[in-house]
Amino acid sequence: MSSSFPVEILTLFPDFFDGPLRISLTGKAIERGHFSVNCVDIRDFTHDKHRTCDDVPYGGGAGMVMKPEPLVAALEQARERHPDVPRILMSPQGEPFSQKIARELAAGPGMILVCGRYEGVDERVRQHWIDREISIGDYVLTGGEVASMVVIDAVTRLLPGVLGNQESISEESFSAPMLEYPQYTRPREFRGHEVPEILLSGDHGRIATWRQEQALARTQERRPDLLRRDDAAPGGESDT
Amino acid sequence: MSSSFPVEILTLFPDFFDGPLRISLTGKAIERGHFSVNCVDIRDFTHDKHRTCDDVPYGGGAGMVMKPEPLVAALEQARERHPDVPRILMSPQGEPFSQKIARELAAGPGMILVCGRYEGVDERVRQHWIDREISIGDYVLTGGEVASMVVIDAVTRLLPGVLGNQESISEESFSAPMLEYPQYTRPREFRGHEVPEILLSGDHGRIATWRQEQALARTQERRPDLLRRDDAAPGGESDT
Repeated sequence: MSSSFPVEILTLFPDFFDGPLRISLTGKAIERGHFSVNCVDIRDFTHDKHRTCDDVPYGGGAGMVMKPEPLVAALEQARERHPDVPRILMSPQGEPFSQKIARELAAGPGMILVCGRYEGVDERVRQHWIDREISIGDYVLTGGEVASMVVIDAVTRLLPGVLGNQESISEESFSAPMLEYPQYTRPREFRGHEVPEILLSGDHGRIATWRQEQALARTQERRPDLLRRDDAAPGGESDT
Repeated sequence: MSSSFPVEILTLFPDFFDGPLRISLTGKAIERGHFSVNCVDIRDFTHDKHRTCDDVPYGGGAGMVMKPEPLVAALEQARERHPDVPRILMSPQGEPFSQKIARELAAGPGMILVCGRYEGVDERVRQHWIDREISIGDYVLTGGEVASMVVIDAVTRLLPGVLGNQESISEESFSAPMLEYPQYTRPREFRGHEVPEILLSGDHGRIATWRQEQALARTQERRPDLLRRDDAAPGGESDT
């Protein structure tokens, strides 16, 4: 299937992606050719019997470091297929991922995502063969696989045609970055708990005002930091 | 396999987890009984032919909202199996996930993780059947599956015995929250790029000092915000 948005994943664990890339929106978007994914096993670029991709760190210390040779060979081959696509290392040392970065990447020509393992990646690879380092959050993961899946999910849903209902994206939007207002669906009463009266009123103006107030109150209570920032909100994106 | 740390995942897409739970550390830790995972398909708690789990929002608006009935029935059954385990909703409105929260959850009795889809979950479920809401970052995902996989990865690697090499956790530690220092492995020269001389010196005192300086410089350059915080660092955790 031809696609204008190639995603290359360089990983030691290609099986990780079987389920995540098959289900739901993501699976459908790939089927329809909105983007393509190629999982590259870094071990295929080793030349020893044990297919070694890691080695002990210079200077001592616990854990193992990803060797430069197989990783750089895999990166170079991916770059040959897609010369202009940015090479992104998933790393706790990267810039914090945000909705703004998701939009930037969705506007670009695709992504080559490198999933780091072990204690990290040889520094020379970072310095000379990587264009960008991204961290999905301030917590420690066993490897970059789940982090790159987060980036794929957040970026590809923004590609044209992926969300059938384009309204859903604009509905998430706020002029200021805020959390979303509370949502209710049927039944009107569930185990003694009622839907707020105003949502049943049919008065769209008052409903819109109530929702704005709820979104603001919730943001003030839970994430006052968002109201002081100018980048995108969780659960919502700005239209700009 | 009996386990003292049950993880229940309530989802509309149980196939998502096939790969992620099978590979690497996570797969081995489950095999060895360090924790157990039970994927619950929320659709199994519907009673109509179409196994409907979503419905239109009261008050109008785009997208669909997860219905309370099947989700609450699934939550109640999970709670019967594990009465004291916290019910956690993955949600952009949740508290930002951090290494501190990962440690809290790893010290607890397990996790019941609810993966939200669509525009969200009926507010009454949040209010009355959820103990905690967690967001993995300020970006929009298609659903809670990948977010709950992030939490599972970050939390379960902290369970006793999961990381074979317990040194790796303490090596990640810093007295102050900082990014990690650069790592190098063989070969000593790779395509004209050399390993820093000091790492070959064998002088462990000077190497430790150099690494501290590098970690601090990198943190000041990339994430000065971390040096002003007192919670855990990315790529490292505090010993306290």
